[in-house]
Amino acid sequence: MPGDPAVMCAAEAAAALQARRISAEELASANLARIARIDPHVKAFSFVDPGMVIRRAREIDKTPRRGSLHGLTVAVKDVIDTYDMPTQQNSPIYIGHQPSKDAAVVACCRALGAVFVGKTDTVEFAAGGRLAATRNPHDLRHTPGGTSSGSAAAVASGMAALALGTQTGGSTLRPASFCGIFGFKPTHGVVSQEGSKLYSTSLDTIGWFGRSVADLSLLAEELRITRQRRSPRSDPRRMRIGLCRTPWFSKAQPEAQRALEDAVTRLARASAEIEELNLPDEFDRMVEVARTIMLGEGRAAFLSEYLVNNRLLHQDFKDRIEKAIEDDSLREAKDFAAAARPSFERAMTGLDCVITIGAVGEAPRSLDTTGDALFQRVWTALHVPCVALPASRGPNQMPVGVQLVAPRYKDADLLDVAAAVAEIIGITKVSPVEPNLVCSR
Amino acid sequence: MPGDPAVMCAAEAAAALQARRISAEELASANLARIARIDPHVKAFSFVDPGMVIRRAREIDKTPRRGSLHGLTVAVKDVIDTYDMPTQQNSPIYIGHQPSKDAAVVACCRALGAVFVGKTDTVEFAAGGRLAATRNPHDLRHTPGGTSSGSAAAVASGMAALALGTQTGGSTLRPASFCGIFGFKPTHGVVSQEGSKLYSTSLDTIGWFGRSVADLSLLAEELRITRQRRSPRSDPRRMRIGLCRTPWFSKAQPEAQRALEDAVTRLARASAEIEELNLPDEFDRMVEVARTIMLGEGRAAFLSEYLVNNRLLHQDFKDRIEKAIEDDSLREAKDFAAAARPSFERAMTGLDCVITIGAVGEAPRSLDTTGDALFQRVWTALHVPCVALPASRGPNQMPVGVQLVAPRYKDADLLDVAAAVAEIIGITKVSPVEPNLVCSR
Repeated sequence: MPGDPAVMCAAEAAAALQARRISAEELASANLARIARIDPHVKAFSFVDPGMVIRRAREIDKTPRRGSLHGLTVAVKDVIDTYDMPTQQNSPIYIGHQPSKDAAVVACCRALGAVFVGKTDTVEFAAGGRLAATRNPHDLRHTPGGTSSGSAAAVASGMAALALGTQTGGSTLRPASFCGIFGFKPTHGVVSQEGSKLYSTSLDTIGWFGRSVADLSLLAEELRITRQRRSPRSDPRRMRIGLCRTPWFSKAQPEAQRALEDAVTRLARASAEIEELNLPDEFDRMVEVARTIMLGEGRAAFLSEYLVNNRLLHQDFKDRIEKAIEDDSLREAKDFAAAARPSFERAMTGLDCVITIGAVGEAPRSLDTTGDALFQRVWTALHVPCVALPASRGPNQMPVGVQLVAPRYKDADLLDVAAAVAEIIGITKVSPVEPNLVCSR
Repeated sequence: MPGDPAVMCAAEAAAALQARRISAEELASANLARIARIDPHVKAFSFVDPGMVIRRAREIDKTPRRGSLHGLTVAVKDVIDTYDMPTQQNSPIYIGHQPSKDAAVVACCRALGAVFVGKTDTVEFAAGGRLAATRNPHDLRHTPGGTSSGSAAAVASGMAALALGTQTGGSTLRPASFCGIFGFKPTHGVVSQEGSKLYSTSLDTIGWFGRSVADLSLLAEELRITRQRRSPRSDPRRMRIGLCRTPWFSKAQPEAQRALEDAVTRLARASAEIEELNLPDEFDRMVEVARTIMLGEGRAAFLSEYLVNNRLLHQDFKDRIEKAIEDDSLREAKDFAAAARPSFERAMTGLDCVITIGAVGEAPRSLDTTGDALFQRVWTALHVPCVALPASRGPNQMPVGVQLVAPRYKDADLLDVAAAVAEIIGITKVSPVEPNLVCSR
């Protein structure tokens, strides 16, 4: 095999593994070499045991192939349990904590032959408090976004083929956008949360990162969330796409606005039918509603740590208990979001997907923030599947993305449309970025 | 201390512990003595380590009191993780499985001084497949109900002061009714499910069992789900109670219908205002809707076992994957239930609670069924808090209950009203039942 297998996207690596052009060990070794070289600067990982990774890859090389995950390297956000690696949640409470059992999603990936390269750093409990140590591999002075900071940075810099994340506000798609890669948040509930930190259970969703739409689809298919694919697939040149600037458009940076408008221009030129989709007026409240649900449900999520490990718990989480959202507000917010779900889907009847702002702008030049989830919260609360696509660059040459959205359970169709849209935008795959290690000093 | 401390209900035992009339060790020893004598017949427990229980109780006797759970014995349904006892889920996959961490609710109880007496047998994964080995302590030929079979039987026969259960269909309140004890299913989401088996996450709710309403309130207060208590408490003699026979009334056994009518007669005599509450017509669909959600969400819940441990997985769970509910049906059912929640609460405006059928009838004389969840499913899907109260006896002298329901998050008010209703019905507390061990042979 000529060249560095870590440069391939997951779908390409899967094909190379199947054709035996590369071995699982070669892929894992290539990722580990990058981790050794780059991760002291990017700090994507909170745990890596290279010996264990290689042993697992060798074992997979001797095991009959069960599907397209076979031999692919997967990084796991450190709020998702793994029986052979600690799960520390970036919390002083869980330093060195070793779960006895894989989270359901990890167990699925492991059964299908994935090679876990390590655990990725996260904002504390994927919720608040301490930020990950991770830096953006495009420019180490910038945040990679969060809370799935390490997972996004690991995939962006070729330290893993795929990575698992979670999203309660914007924790998967924002870092995907900031790190210039592809991100997927499936329909709420289609991937079991068992063994992953539960924060706000009516919002929490496990998602993942890749360097092409095909990467995202590969894992979606292996996790069997793409049954109800429309058949036959629609001609990508005859797509009907809803352009949703959202009520918060004016809060987006010019680069994010431009990325959306440029993508739409290209789509229109490629004969896609573009239709403006104005969200119903009451959707103005959705960002606040989503925050109310998140903080309100967070009260139950952190009570045990509050009672058991109070001194080691960040004040952010104590506030969830001590300054709790009123029950009446929580109930009202949940009912509002529940009613908005079918209402949004009615509004997008006949559209293949909705295209919208990916994130507020490029990643802020700061390691003291993970950026703003403003442009993800509404979709998370609507439970709809979302894809982040890299689209352009901002004033600091940092990546800027756009976001595609479809009705609940239309995950397969969304991924198909996303592949077509990525082709029209002209970024179907991204190569691992090589951080400029000089400028970080 | 004269007499058997295991005879006291949890609230009485808590008072005795606080006054140092009994020690935690004495209470635990009394429960263990019953376990030794009765449990070979009732089979409520899947795991008990008497030495560990006594060591823990002695430790608690030396520890400063932190609240009213201090020294109380709690049995834990075996789908809820405990770091010092196995969690086996009545599944051949998890024989001897030892979690590394307490479930959130267990961690809360432990931090507050609870003494865990053991793990209680359950229907496989609290969902289907294998039934618990547990028998009804009122008559060993009858089912205790399920899926929280062991937890209900343990409390009914004085083998624990309190027990934790879960409910996705009717898994807490049905066994409470069948075993003649008090059961509580809080508002959905107010108790963290972390570390408990996730089955159908928009329905799953952790609940508990006691031998008085005060027992239920005690744990509710310790778990801080009773903040928004109406103040001052209403005069129990001036309650406004909605009588909801439900569209399924004719499917209830005569003893269940009679228990409801008798309770209402007594309430009316005690000057409570009774108002018939007819559910909106579309609620006829709610039972089917709740089942669709449960089976539909069960697909994600069992995929990992399906992929990893297929041969040890009961066909019931394989069916969740192979004969999955269509996504469109699941989405429609979820939207229907979500819209029904505020609709039900509007219908009960001005009422202190709704009183309804507790369970289809007395516990069936069979160990091959856990009975029917018909009269719980709708309330579970509505996310409302529910209390099961013992009310009378059926043709086989088995217990028959009634059920009280309140709007979401009105858990504290519901428990207050339930205490008043129990007093009017005339059963404020039940004593542990002594199974007739002769008739079991």
